[in-house]
Amino acid sequence: MGNKFVYSFEEGSADLKELLGGKGANLAVMTRLGIPVPPGFIITTEACQAYYKGDTKAISASIVEEYTQHLDKLEATMGKKLGDDQDPLLVSVRSGGAISMPGMMDTILNLGLNSTSVLGLIAQTSNPRFAYDSYRRFVMMFGEVVMGVPSHLFEAALERIKNEKNVTLDTELNAEDFKKLVGEFEEIIQKHTNQPFPQSPMVQLEMSIEAIFKSWNNSRAILYRELNNLKSLSGTAATVQAMVFGNKGETSGTGVCFSRNPSTGENVFYGEYLMNAQGEDVVAGTRTPLSIEALGHQNKALYEELVGYKDKLEQHTTDMQDMEFTIEEGKLWMLQTRSGKRTAAAAVRIAVEMAKEGLIDEKQAVLRVDPAQLDQLLHKQLDPEATKAATVLGKGLPASPGAAVGKIVFDAEEAHKRNEAGEKVILVRVETSPEDLIGMNAAQGVLTTRGGMTSHAAVVARGMGKCCVAGCSDALINEEKKTLTMKGKTLNDGEYITLDGSVGVVYEGRVATIEPELSGYFGELMIMADKFRTLLVKTNADNPKDALTAIKFGAQGIGLCRTEHMFFDASRIQAVREMIVAKDTHSRVKALDKLLPYQEKDFQEIFEALEGKPAIIRLLDPPLHEFLPKDEADIREVAKEVGVTKEELEQTISSLHEFNPMLGFRGCRLGVVYPEISQMQARAIFQAALKVPGCEPWIEIPLVGHLKEYLFLKEVIEKVAVEVGAVAYKIGTMIEVPRAALTADELAPHCDFFSFGTNDLTQMCCGFSRDDADSFLKHYVGKGIYEKDPFQSLDQSGVGRLMEICVAQARAVNPALHIGICGEHGGDPASVEFCHRLGLDEVSCSPYRVPIARLAAAHGAIKALKNK
Amino acid sequence: MGNKFVYSFEEGSADLKELLGGKGANLAVMTRLGIPVPPGFIITTEACQAYYKGDTKAISASIVEEYTQHLDKLEATMGKKLGDDQDPLLVSVRSGGAISMPGMMDTILNLGLNSTSVLGLIAQTSNPRFAYDSYRRFVMMFGEVVMGVPSHLFEAALERIKNEKNVTLDTELNAEDFKKLVGEFEEIIQKHTNQPFPQSPMVQLEMSIEAIFKSWNNSRAILYRELNNLKSLSGTAATVQAMVFGNKGETSGTGVCFSRNPSTGENVFYGEYLMNAQGEDVVAGTRTPLSIEALGHQNKALYEELVGYKDKLEQHTTDMQDMEFTIEEGKLWMLQTRSGKRTAAAAVRIAVEMAKEGLIDEKQAVLRVDPAQLDQLLHKQLDPEATKAATVLGKGLPASPGAAVGKIVFDAEEAHKRNEAGEKVILVRVETSPEDLIGMNAAQGVLTTRGGMTSHAAVVARGMGKCCVAGCSDALINEEKKTLTMKGKTLNDGEYITLDGSVGVVYEGRVATIEPELSGYFGELMIMADKFRTLLVKTNADNPKDALTAIKFGAQGIGLCRTEHMFFDASRIQAVREMIVAKDTHSRVKALDKLLPYQEKDFQEIFEALEGKPAIIRLLDPPLHEFLPKDEADIREVAKEVGVTKEELEQTISSLHEFNPMLGFRGCRLGVVYPEISQMQARAIFQAALKVPGCEPWIEIPLVGHLKEYLFLKEVIEKVAVEVGAVAYKIGTMIEVPRAALTADELAPHCDFFSFGTNDLTQMCCGFSRDDADSFLKHYVGKGIYEKDPFQSLDQSGVGRLMEICVAQARAVNPALHIGICGEHGGDPASVEFCHRLGLDEVSCSPYRVPIARLAAAHGAIKALKNK
Repeated sequence: MGNKFVYSFEEGSADLKELLGGKGANLAVMTRLGIPVPPGFIITTEACQAYYKGDTKAISASIVEEYTQHLDKLEATMGKKLGDDQDPLLVSVRSGGAISMPGMMDTILNLGLNSTSVLGLIAQTSNPRFAYDSYRRFVMMFGEVVMGVPSHLFEAALERIKNEKNVTLDTELNAEDFKKLVGEFEEIIQKHTNQPFPQSPMVQLEMSIEAIFKSWNNSRAILYRELNNLKSLSGTAATVQAMVFGNKGETSGTGVCFSRNPSTGENVFYGEYLMNAQGEDVVAGTRTPLSIEALGHQNKALYEELVGYKDKLEQHTTDMQDMEFTIEEGKLWMLQTRSGKRTAAAAVRIAVEMAKEGLIDEKQAVLRVDPAQLDQLLHKQLDPEATKAATVLGKGLPASPGAAVGKIVFDAEEAHKRNEAGEKVILVRVETSPEDLIGMNAAQGVLTTRGGMTSHAAVVARGMGKCCVAGCSDALINEEKKTLTMKGKTLNDGEYITLDGSVGVVYEGRVATIEPELSGYFGELMIMADKFRTLLVKTNADNPKDALTAIKFGAQGIGLCRTEHMFFDASRIQAVREMIVAKDTHSRVKALDKLLPYQEKDFQEIFEALEGKPAIIRLLDPPLHEFLPKDEADIREVAKEVGVTKEELEQTISSLHEFNPMLGFRGCRLGVVYPEISQMQARAIFQAALKVPGCEPWIEIPLVGHLKEYLFLKEVIEKVAVEVGAVAYKIGTMIEVPRAALTADELAPHCDFFSFGTNDLTQMCCGFSRDDADSFLKHYVGKGIYEKDPFQSLDQSGVGRLMEICVAQARAVNPALHIGICGEHGGDPASVEFCHRLGLDEVSCSPYRVPIARLAAAHGAIKALKNK
Repeated sequence: MGNKFVYSFEEGSADLKELLGGKGANLAVMTRLGIPVPPGFIITTEACQAYYKGDTKAISASIVEEYTQHLDKLEATMGKKLGDDQDPLLVSVRSGGAISMPGMMDTILNLGLNSTSVLGLIAQTSNPRFAYDSYRRFVMMFGEVVMGVPSHLFEAALERIKNEKNVTLDTELNAEDFKKLVGEFEEIIQKHTNQPFPQSPMVQLEMSIEAIFKSWNNSRAILYRELNNLKSLSGTAATVQAMVFGNKGETSGTGVCFSRNPSTGENVFYGEYLMNAQGEDVVAGTRTPLSIEALGHQNKALYEELVGYKDKLEQHTTDMQDMEFTIEEGKLWMLQTRSGKRTAAAAVRIAVEMAKEGLIDEKQAVLRVDPAQLDQLLHKQLDPEATKAATVLGKGLPASPGAAVGKIVFDAEEAHKRNEAGEKVILVRVETSPEDLIGMNAAQGVLTTRGGMTSHAAVVARGMGKCCVAGCSDALINEEKKTLTMKGKTLNDGEYITLDGSVGVVYEGRVATIEPELSGYFGELMIMADKFRTLLVKTNADNPKDALTAIKFGAQGIGLCRTEHMFFDASRIQAVREMIVAKDTHSRVKALDKLLPYQEKDFQEIFEALEGKPAIIRLLDPPLHEFLPKDEADIREVAKEVGVTKEELEQTISSLHEFNPMLGFRGCRLGVVYPEISQMQARAIFQAALKVPGCEPWIEIPLVGHLKEYLFLKEVIEKVAVEVGAVAYKIGTMIEVPRAALTADELAPHCDFFSFGTNDLTQMCCGFSRDDADSFLKHYVGKGIYEKDPFQSLDQSGVGRLMEICVAQARAVNPALHIGICGEHGGDPASVEFCHRLGLDEVSCSPYRVPIARLAAAHGAIKALKNK
């Protein structure tokens, strides 16, 4: 540790981030680029360490001495003095480690204000209301974060004064009110802490720095570092910077600007400003800011100076910058610069254009676009203008992005009929089940009142690329009366609503939409990404339409074709039910024979759509009861259709009832008990494949837990292959039962491929059911137990570890084994990158997430190159 | 490989088991001990290898030459000739590898019979019926196992002849009938194989030996070797031995004897015999055999000779022997000796006495008793005499051993009331739920019509040491009429039935019972076992009574105390329900405050019963809906009791409904969402512990999957400890979610102990629900996919691997971590031994299985010593 604990901005640099913190280093960089930044200095992270190593838990006299010298210089530079009654120096004090960290103290503004300097501020701004408002804000902030007074005490005082004056908004208070508040606030501090609010600016400063150092070790910050494995960080720095004011009259002002258009990405300077204003005035919307171009007309020199800084910063950071500036009495100060937030479209265009400009290389360009953001580009959107005027009926979960406008329908069959008749409908259900597929497919969008982000409705809708708002608990459905009640409004069947699946909002009536633009930039980015990507990206598709959509988005085949979806089609369901109620193998085979030609045709169409790309076909997976009717009337009708008595059908339904269907009679267990089902499916697959040149189906056995289950069904399939004369095919298994992952070394020698079914693997590994977990998972994410919903983003440290064990064991005995992942996680960027690190061969996701997976896979590959 | 392929019995020895097979070596041993064994020779396993290595797949001429020489000697020794029409030599041919193996050819008897030698056999036995019966049996056996003719063809011919004669039993056929059958059988062979039945004894022999060699590589035998990892075995031997006959008149006879009493274990010679009879006559029961002592009176010299061989064989094998002998015309031949099957009581007595006699050491004595067998000794039994006269009403699963006699009751409350009134009752339910606990506790035994070996009724009854017949699908309950119908008989409420939980049988009326005898030998065996055992054995107990029972059986503390069972008591359930319906933390805390004194008292009583032995107390685990009523009337009543409307209660019930409750809102998830529940429980535990000197409670957090869940609740508990002033306590977690096992290295540093909850761990690792798995697990065990029900005996290669990973990871970061297992597997011998190998510190099981676990743990330890 050196003995220099304080650095002026001129002394700092980007390399010193560890020592100066991120913010401090950033200000130093701007300063060293010759950009005018309000001057200041940084008390280093080493000073923080020294504070904790000392016995007294106080800032040592030598460090106080050192920053006091820097403060003197600062006063000299600014020509102002702390606490002065004419032109006081005010400063901000900010904490900042190398990485920003929630739980730590953030910022104190206007430090230096006291009953004397507030007069100086009035003299400078001619605005007593502003001065006292700033003063009371400073006292409150200081009282709260430095002296530990609960904020509600201050808020109560503010409330009281507003009640006395019979007003509701802070803006309705005047200078006198704020002045009175300052007094009250100081009393509150005295009463609560038995200490006065320090009038001395030097004491204010010392206490603030100490508070920053202390906040480094408060329990929230410690927990955050533990959870995020940030043990190497040494402490926080404290940055002290002169404040400048944009509200010192008509030669002062303030603004925000972007080096490129953050909406479109176009390479034009973009921003807005207000003269004689503070930053908060720009944000508050009480005055309308001017476009940044207007500054060019108003003060050309200053505008050009600003453009110069913009160019310099973008060149230096090689990214689109979001900058804040203040003009104080004609002098331009840059307060902050950072990477600008941008829409997906802008992100894509900026990345592609910067690569073309040579500002960044292609790897960087690819990494610049967050794969998750691409989702925005792949769906129809509501016109942002139109939403402003629309009436919000309620909020649910943004279950599947995009926008949908249509008439309310409460029944899947009905939705299908009306769609056939040319109407646009929205399917509204309490929750959906596989029987609703036909209606979901026909609808513009789906609204459910129950279920989470991974409910049936949500998962299926995302798979279809169809807009869905799920779990909208504001809504009440009366199925009998066919009404939907939201926010007291009752809508009838046939009335229009609009859904925004990207944010989970339901609007009344029809709201205008805009089509997604898959601009040329998007395509160019994908080409760049594919140069680096090594993971295959396939799609989950159960029909030719989805397969073709996915191929359009770049899918390299089907990674998961769920055969059960085909079973629900009206033309097949009766045979399926006959198969289920069959009392012996003979009648089961008879029913299966009816299904065979349908399945064969389904597969043939899919194989034709793929034009030789590979397809993984999963054998029947769900529990059989899913195919049986639930309510009295349906049971009666179905019994008649399949030729059994109502009682017999009820008996079958009851015998198939399970306490935990997730862990029940499904997957390969169906095939082990009724091999004739697997035989029929294998036959359909092989016969279809033989009709399509170049087709090599991959047959996937689901829910395997034990080698012997797999071997049993593999033999069944191979026998059928011999009978049919099929030669080109692969057999493998889904890895979705923890036991399968743990015994991968037993399975691998007998498999051509593995595909991680991480939905079920997560359910069984973590022990929570996707359908039920909402009740506690929301508390869990809230309490930080899981940072993300493990059904949306792979739980890398738990489920991921199981996958790691599986891959290592499997590859050790069968290095050629092809390993992939399918299901929701295959379209989640973080999960895709994890799969790359794990050395998988492919990911498979829903068609609309294929571009996201492609980009994420490229990210994984590029990051791996960097780490080599 | 040497060039000697055939060994006479005199040339063999126990060391040559690999070469001669188990059976052959055994006969050689008897021969070399000077015991008269019908002579013979063995064609070695190397001859079998040579057979497979040869190009022709035929037995080489030199080997045929070699065994023919041995055969010549055999004829000389016996003074008989193969195929002779006066006194023919007949031989048996048996296969035998070093380990006996299902799927391989077993035995051919009476080889050498043909149309000539059958006359010789008649001449010798003066019994044409016997001779032709033997002949037709030989032809059938030869046709089937050597020539591959399906047995049903022979059986059809036999049926036909019985139909012609209008008889139903084989015993009703005479010599002529059998002679005719021989002819028909030979025709069947000719027709089916296009080859004649070989009349030549030498051809019969060569074909038999070749068939034995071939059966070594049939698919069933190969599969068996693969599954049992018997790759090192080289082949099978074939043993050829002269046949002797006990039915050659009044100086001939046959018998079976045991070196000690196999029922009681008493060291007395035991057995029975018949003169002028074959072995099958002794078994058939048509003639009554005499006690072996009678032989002493009948033929003292021969009896003493037999006793001499008995002593010699027991001394040599150091185990109780089960022997077969035949007397042929006054000459004693020993045909077989093997370890005798024995009752549990006999096994214990024999082991203890042999150790005292110095025949075996204590380690051997301990290993001689199968821990699973002890179960027989620990429960009340039906009097075997009484069961002979009793009427069987039906069969179910032997869910919990022991016997119970009582009056039928259909309702748990009613059972409780009648028991209080002094009646003995049997609780009869479709299936049980936690609400039935009070009735199960009050009943003598439990009968259910649904559910498997691991259903609620079965698990709870085993825990209580209470007799239970579960899943008795023969029985039909009419709850309204209060009747039980079985086999057409309808029994009313209050009528007597008797259950035999050890075999799963239900009897009508009252059947006499006998009390278990925990004789002194049992105690002596346990003392020996404990000398070697290193695993702690604790018990699962939720109340002082169970704890005391277990301690009587040697339990060293409580390994699992489930707190929820206390919640169902009538005095508490209302407060529990108030807690569940509470709308806010305040009212929840109010309801919990009511529960606190009850829980505290429960714990205090348990701690007092333990007298300082440690107890692991698990926090509330089951989903809350288990505490709420299910049917309409109960809901109405409970709503009134807890002070909410029926609709509100229904709303609560519906909001707690889950699709997969196993994977739902339970375990630590309850405490994370409602920390006040865990606070109350921790407070009750600490306050109770402080009242009992020397008490150190171990608090167990259930269903942890993620470190942060654990840390959250650990903090909650530690805060309560500080408030209450508790110092001596441990905190740990159950490992029952795969994720917890996989992240053991994260958890271990923060835990004092782990306890594997292998019931849930099995459910989640294998992906099947204990409540639902019956539907396919029976097929699975049937198809050999799982050899044992993984809920009864730990799935060592799947779940066990997960445990191994967990233990290795945990011990690497916290070597002092105490690790145990609780639940059903803790009382399963194979699982206990596995736990020993895994290096666990303790197992915990239900009170009545404590001695079993102690013995199994000793087995584990002794076997580990041997492997060192």
